[in-house]
Amino acid sequence: MKKNNTNYPLKAAVRNMIEDVPVCYSNWNISDVKKMLFEKIKKIGTINYIYVIAKDKKLVGVFSIKEVFRRKGTAKVDLIMQKDLVKVRPYTDQERVAILALKNNLKAIPVVAKDDKFLGVVPSDVILSILHSENVEDFLRMAGIRSSFLKISKGSSLYLARVRIPWLILGLLGGILAAKIMNYFETPLKDYFILTSFVPLMLYLASAVGTQTETLFIRNLALDNKFSFLKYLLREINVGFLIAAILGFLLALVSIFWFGSSAFLGFIMAISLFLTILTAVLIGVCIPFVLQKFKKDPAIGTGPFATILRDIMSLVIYFSVSIFLLKLVQIL
Amino acid sequence: MKKNNTNYPLKAAVRNMIEDVPVCYSNWNISDVKKMLFEKIKKIGTINYIYVIAKDKKLVGVFSIKEVFRRKGTAKVDLIMQKDLVKVRPYTDQERVAILALKNNLKAIPVVAKDDKFLGVVPSDVILSILHSENVEDFLRMAGIRSSFLKISKGSSLYLARVRIPWLILGLLGGILAAKIMNYFETPLKDYFILTSFVPLMLYLASAVGTQTETLFIRNLALDNKFSFLKYLLREINVGFLIAAILGFLLALVSIFWFGSSAFLGFIMAISLFLTILTAVLIGVCIPFVLQKFKKDPAIGTGPFATILRDIMSLVIYFSVSIFLLKLVQIL
Repeated sequence: MKKNNTNYPLKAAVRNMIEDVPVCYSNWNISDVKKMLFEKIKKIGTINYIYVIAKDKKLVGVFSIKEVFRRKGTAKVDLIMQKDLVKVRPYTDQERVAILALKNNLKAIPVVAKDDKFLGVVPSDVILSILHSENVEDFLRMAGIRSSFLKISKGSSLYLARVRIPWLILGLLGGILAAKIMNYFETPLKDYFILTSFVPLMLYLASAVGTQTETLFIRNLALDNKFSFLKYLLREINVGFLIAAILGFLLALVSIFWFGSSAFLGFIMAISLFLTILTAVLIGVCIPFVLQKFKKDPAIGTGPFATILRDIMSLVIYFSVSIFLLKLVQIL
Repeated sequence: MKKNNTNYPLKAAVRNMIEDVPVCYSNWNISDVKKMLFEKIKKIGTINYIYVIAKDKKLVGVFSIKEVFRRKGTAKVDLIMQKDLVKVRPYTDQERVAILALKNNLKAIPVVAKDDKFLGVVPSDVILSILHSENVEDFLRMAGIRSSFLKISKGSSLYLARVRIPWLILGLLGGILAAKIMNYFETPLKDYFILTSFVPLMLYLASAVGTQTETLFIRNLALDNKFSFLKYLLREINVGFLIAAILGFLLALVSIFWFGSSAFLGFIMAISLFLTILTAVLIGVCIPFVLQKFKKDPAIGTGPFATILRDIMSLVIYFSVSIFLLKLVQIL
């Protein structure tokens, strides 16, 4: 039976907890456990593990149901039980519960109060559906849709349009900002139209690199216990440097030998792409990191907001670098 | 113990199966089951369900381990067991197995041969990690990274750059193609520079709508048993129509009243955006659908390939519509 602990956040572990699980005291033996199982089985919701508590209801150990069949009736529970416990608090986020189960290969995770008092467990089928719904949500959020999947799959066209449009309006505003920027740089861009032609390429590559960076970062954040931000950032910058150098070099070659641009314009594009990609890497690491610091789900950052920020930054960098270098050469 | 059925595809159910599960015959009673459990428990890998087979090893039923405690020793297995079974074949894709477990709220899924012969089960912890790794893979693939997460999190900067660069090169080629297209339309675009300024907006909105469409479509495909492509396509087109009309109208207003463009140029942009968005919706539904028809994972389609196709289509539509309408007016 699920208890509704409505004073906890919607995604707290305690909301997904069942209380009717096999529990025994540490001074029992296996015969006592068997008796308890036969008496209480009708009420028990999940049966993979037997949880061992002390007199003060503190959780002190756990053992597999298999032990009940495997051991003699006289075997003492406190000699059988595993004392090294994976446990969560009532307010632990449900995604964290699922990740813990996954990492430790467990079928259920016990929930304990601050004083270690045993409260219940989150069972495997609940963990499975938590993990699934969190992932589906992440996917939808990346696409700028903030609604539950069930509502969406059942909703009318009108409902679906309403759910999808808010982020698109934000995208519209981002696009308008981009148009303002391009308008502002109209004169040099008209004179060097080849620079304009490569605007989609700049935006596309910055966004592709940025998405890769964000995705990898969020996965690492969720799955790595010993996550070091600085170490990760350094590696990411290394990788970004390599990628930016290779793509910038290729772009210069293409623009010179295929589009017949001057070597100098090719150089401008290469430098711009290089800086744009490095910026995309920084944005891709920093936005999720900042969100996580403020206790927000970092997966939010991979939505359209990051895309717009990246696109605007890319345009500004591209045009500023271009104009700076063009002016520099005319001065010399 | 996991059996390596190496003649099956890497992601086949049979590769994730364990064979050591409690099995009994349908003419047994609960006492027989208990005896079997006590004898075999050391070898048994997962214990949630007891599987019931006929003399010819066909799987005929299943019941929860809880029944063993709940029922009298004389109770007959064939009266207790559930006959309505969820089962998979050895070659069933592992993601399908995970989805089935999720939908039916099961802790393990039995695997049977073509003649219904019982082979083993995919247990809950394996289902959990299947679901997780499939989701992480989908995320990485959407970001254009085709490598296992483990390799990536442990790999050197050089390895990481190597894994990430192939799709980026494809992006570079896409960007070059976009540059060629813009170069080709240089004359009208220079004359009507405001059209050029709105290129990022066109690309951005087409890509945002397209990503939403793909994501929803792939989730529906995976989770809906009674999925009807035609019905879905019609609803998606309805939604796309609504979204395209609203955004197109807003864009026309902005370009006229904020950018001071002529009403006619505003009209051109609105029509272009409308057609671009509808095209993005069609691409977003059709690419995953075609991939699925050819037995490829539809989630592949949401990678950079779809993005490039969409971007190129958006540019061609935008410029063709613009020039067609501009010429039409000059003729009149």
